[in-house]
Amino acid sequence: MDYQKIINDIVAELDLSKFDGKVADYIPELGKVSPDKFGVHLNCINSGHYSHGDSDEKFSIQSIAKVFTLTMAALKIGNKVLERVDVEPSGDPFNSLTQLEYENGIPRNPLINAGALVVCDILLTELENPKEDFLAFVRKIAQNPEINYNLKVARSEAKSGFRNAALVNYMKSFGNIHNEVDDVLDLYFHTCSIEMTCKELSETFMLFANRGCILNSGERILTGSQTKRINAIMQTCGFYDEAGEFAFRVGLPGKSGVGGGIAAVHPGYYSVVVWSPKLNPKGNSALGMRVLELLTTKTELSVF
Amino acid sequence: MDYQKIINDIVAELDLSKFDGKVADYIPELGKVSPDKFGVHLNCINSGHYSHGDSDEKFSIQSIAKVFTLTMAALKIGNKVLERVDVEPSGDPFNSLTQLEYENGIPRNPLINAGALVVCDILLTELENPKEDFLAFVRKIAQNPEINYNLKVARSEAKSGFRNAALVNYMKSFGNIHNEVDDVLDLYFHTCSIEMTCKELSETFMLFANRGCILNSGERILTGSQTKRINAIMQTCGFYDEAGEFAFRVGLPGKSGVGGGIAAVHPGYYSVVVWSPKLNPKGNSALGMRVLELLTTKTELSVF
Amino acid sequence: MDYQKIINDIVAELDLSKFDGKVADYIPELGKVSPDKFGVHLNCINSGHYSHGDSDEKFSIQSIAKVFTLTMAALKIGNKVLERVDVEPSGDPFNSLTQLEYENGIPRNPLINAGALVVCDILLTELENPKEDFLAFVRKIAQNPEINYNLKVARSEAKSGFRNAALVNYMKSFGNIHNEVDDVLDLYFHTCSIEMTCKELSETFMLFANRGCILNSGERILTGSQTKRINAIMQTCGFYDEAGEFAFRVGLPGKSGVGGGIAAVHPGYYSVVVWSPKLNPKGNSALGMRVLELLTTKTELSVF
Amino acid sequence: MDYQKIINDIVAELDLSKFDGKVADYIPELGKVSPDKFGVHLNCINSGHYSHGDSDEKFSIQSIAKVFTLTMAALKIGNKVLERVDVEPSGDPFNSLTQLEYENGIPRNPLINAGALVVCDILLTELENPKEDFLAFVRKIAQNPEINYNLKVARSEAKSGFRNAALVNYMKSFGNIHNEVDDVLDLYFHTCSIEMTCKELSETFMLFANRGCILNSGERILTGSQTKRINAIMQTCGFYDEAGEFAFRVGLPGKSGVGGGIAAVHPGYYSVVVWSPKLNPKGNSALGMRVLELLTTKTELSVF
Repeated sequence: MDYQKIINDIVAELDLSKFDGKVADYIPELGKVSPDKFGVHLNCINSGHYSHGDSDEKFSIQSIAKVFTLTMAALKIGNKVLERVDVEPSGDPFNSLTQLEYENGIPRNPLINAGALVVCDILLTELENPKEDFLAFVRKIAQNPEINYNLKVARSEAKSGFRNAALVNYMKSFGNIHNEVDDVLDLYFHTCSIEMTCKELSETFMLFANRGCILNSGERILTGSQTKRINAIMQTCGFYDEAGEFAFRVGLPGKSGVGGGIAAVHPGYYSVVVWSPKLNPKGNSALGMRVLELLTTKTELSVF
Repeated sequence: MDYQKIINDIVAELDLSKFDGKVADYIPELGKVSPDKFGVHLNCINSGHYSHGDSDEKFSIQSIAKVFTLTMAALKIGNKVLERVDVEPSGDPFNSLTQLEYENGIPRNPLINAGALVVCDILLTELENPKEDFLAFVRKIAQNPEINYNLKVARSEAKSGFRNAALVNYMKSFGNIHNEVDDVLDLYFHTCSIEMTCKELSETFMLFANRGCILNSGERILTGSQTKRINAIMQTCGFYDEAGEFAFRVGLPGKSGVGGGIAAVHPGYYSVVVWSPKLNPKGNSALGMRVLELLTTKTELSVF
Repeated sequence: MDYQKIINDIVAELDLSKFDGKVADYIPELGKVSPDKFGVHLNCINSGHYSHGDSDEKFSIQSIAKVFTLTMAALKIGNKVLERVDVEPSGDPFNSLTQLEYENGIPRNPLINAGALVVCDILLTELENPKEDFLAFVRKIAQNPEINYNLKVARSEAKSGFRNAALVNYMKSFGNIHNEVDDVLDLYFHTCSIEMTCKELSETFMLFANRGCILNSGERILTGSQTKRINAIMQTCGFYDEAGEFAFRVGLPGKSGVGGGIAAVHPGYYSVVVWSPKLNPKGNSALGMRVLELLTTKTELSVF
Repeated sequence: MDYQKIINDIVAELDLSKFDGKVADYIPELGKVSPDKFGVHLNCINSGHYSHGDSDEKFSIQSIAKVFTLTMAALKIGNKVLERVDVEPSGDPFNSLTQLEYENGIPRNPLINAGALVVCDILLTELENPKEDFLAFVRKIAQNPEINYNLKVARSEAKSGFRNAALVNYMKSFGNIHNEVDDVLDLYFHTCSIEMTCKELSETFMLFANRGCILNSGERILTGSQTKRINAIMQTCGFYDEAGEFAFRVGLPGKSGVGGGIAAVHPGYYSVVVWSPKLNPKGNSALGMRVLELLTTKTELSVF
């Protein structure tokens, strides 16, 4: 499969003027990014790297970090994660409180904010130095010591994070948060503030394309069954209330962030990251979804 | 892969006494089925048939028929189906009215009752002899003229189908049902009443495992892209509010019915059907889900 | 208290051009009424009748009839009504299905559609000739044999009454409807189709102003306690999701209908009816609410 | 009307062993109160004081304070309060977040927690020394300088007030809280911690029975129209999701608190307070509701 040609064909076919979403600006730091950034990086298990555009520029991975917090929590306490967060799609926006109310403080899944906050609470309990240990874990699966938090972004989120504060307080009222509210929020905002390039992020997601092993070293991090489960959660829950649409159009497990990134994997084949900061009304990168739809259509390959 | 050995191992490992769900009895005809029925049939693209137990006994496929009505509607009017039904997981029980209210009569997806009723409404408009034409279509993809409606079951559903009548009336009040309420219900109850054996149903689902072509004849029914989309909908929406759990544990696109059947596919590999009438509280076959979880765990293969 | 002067002052003060609501037209027959109709009739226990404008013209009382069906059901089976319908305000539009779902088919109160449909089901069970007996009852408390159903309106509602059909079917699926769906709808649509003038309706509502006795004859229909309860239900539930607003601005128990009528009572003092077909977005007569607000403001008297 | 005899008759008729609700214990300080406390105090405009039992013992008024915060806010900014909080019954438990989500951070009414928190936010903006000024206001309408906050209770609430913290943070995310989250909570918890006896509280509520004037001094605090509106809000919203039931059974405007107190008024006649700490499942004093039901039944007088 000539992935570079396919990426070039996709880019040639796109009418970029048609993608007029809005850059997330509820966090001032994010609002400063140029809406015209556009990068693609595909990392094939067998044949290496293919890219386009701003694929070597760092961006804020935001909610994509939820996949890494989930992975680390699963490694620490296994299926006990499921006692505190479910694995069902939410059918609701990413910061909905309604379902929490009907379901007594148990978030629908670990890839919405409420769920990721519970996962951060688990990490706070399990890790000695939560922020340092988590960053070290991401660097390890990325095989890259250059990955860092952006402290300005983390602080920026903390200042306007009233909705996340509401979620944590609310779940704590149900007993589903064990640590201090402020500590949970602090870890959560840090994880969201991690910055990576498309290339770096695709290398990190290779773990999920490569059945749980780091590609270069062959080191096994997750069992095959654990990898299956995390990919399954990405497939059914990775795009807020647009998860069905993404599965329908693209047909790959993946996760989006309001920084405009989307990371996806075709297990056994490749990982791929697209970055374009213009978001559709559901909070996902409009151009990113289109690029990935064209990728699975042109390759005639998806998990389905 | 020695599928027969794997099936035998699974059966040997199961403690059947642990699966104590309830047979669906809101339709009197369904309540008459022995709760101890248990059949498995796996149909491999390359290597043929493997089975266990009551795999040659007919059962009521019920909601599994929603995959066939969706397929036929997609063939008739293509993406226009999406103007009248969404493709998002519902996060709610199979007969919920709440979401219809918030979303102005547009069902969440075509595999919940509301969505399948809209799809039946589409078929009523598009087909000359709806009941006959639909049955002919199922027989065709099943490559089997022995497939029939069970009229007793269809009538039995009609008598107690107040919730479905509520759904159709409600959607008609939003203009999303174009034909007469009674005609929509009549077609819907007929489609649900179709009876197949595990083997027959796995042969029908081979269409979705074999990228849209009938296996024996090679005849193309669906494009690859259409097949991807239907499989994606099954993956995210095929198990009511347990779709995430099924993806998480099993990792295959599939669809369940209250008759106790579950049909699933691993695209490019096999289709598989399990039948056990004892349902868990979410309305899915408890034993069926367990068998399929063991299948993807033992084969170490799933779409994820 | 010179009620005629107060009514005249109110009318003089109103800027009618400011009330630009929409006439209900989901029932074609209702859509034919001139939006400029405007009638007021106040019936004082001690001092008789005061009126303005089109107060002697018949209009469709619509949901105001729910007070009469409730009254008749309470007389027939007393507090057993409460086993099948609650008495809490709904906080939702008049035809909401969401709450029915969360509360297992028990309507919030007898003055929303779902509740009135259950009440009609009770009357079907309790009355020998439901439509005739109900009309006779209304004529009796109205002391007026000239009150009739408008069969054209009743038929018109039946043709477009899909949402009410959804409600009845849905509640029947929970076992909270005992008679045939069509019979319940038929009685309900008839009760809504009753036509009265402002004067006639105010004479009927005198029952609730006069502690349960017919004013002219002195005949007791309801006990004081029963009257209190029906007035309380009107106060908390009589205006769909605007009940709080009506209590806040007007401070009287009352009931509105989409025909543009509002009937209200000040127990011990008077009954009053305003008719103006232009509805605000919540389905209540905008002008009617304003007239009654001015009435209790100018008289400095309300139940509060 | 011989109110003392009526109260005695009511007490004689009650089977106290039947009222087995639970004392609120989510605040440790409240849980220490004896469940058997029982006091009644009726304050008649014309004929003075009548009482029973522990009517001179202080208890925590809790949510009854919401009536005083609302009154003070209405005096400060009038109808502008309505721009930030609605006046509709909620149909939901007292600390529900669901409606806030659907209604963009505007609480349903000022007598549920969310609404009272917004009202406290208003007072923080309007008052120079919020806690001191509010207490002075309550002392004034109570005509009693002995009324105080219980600082132990206030601190106790602060420690377990995660749900209220969730509400404030959530509303702040919609822009409907202008001050610091912690300051709003601090004022709110102080207002709830006020302690009064039945007698003192009935004297305070006399303001709402006496059309807005302090009974002893004749000083006007509220206009007649303002009094009507506050009473109307109590009637439709004073008992969480049991407001309809209270109107139906009792027929008086009133407000309950989880300390077990209920204050109610019959405008033009009397104010009355009952205290019994055993709460029914909706959070209202079971015995208190029964006493008031018997009061309006035996006197054959209510607002309806």
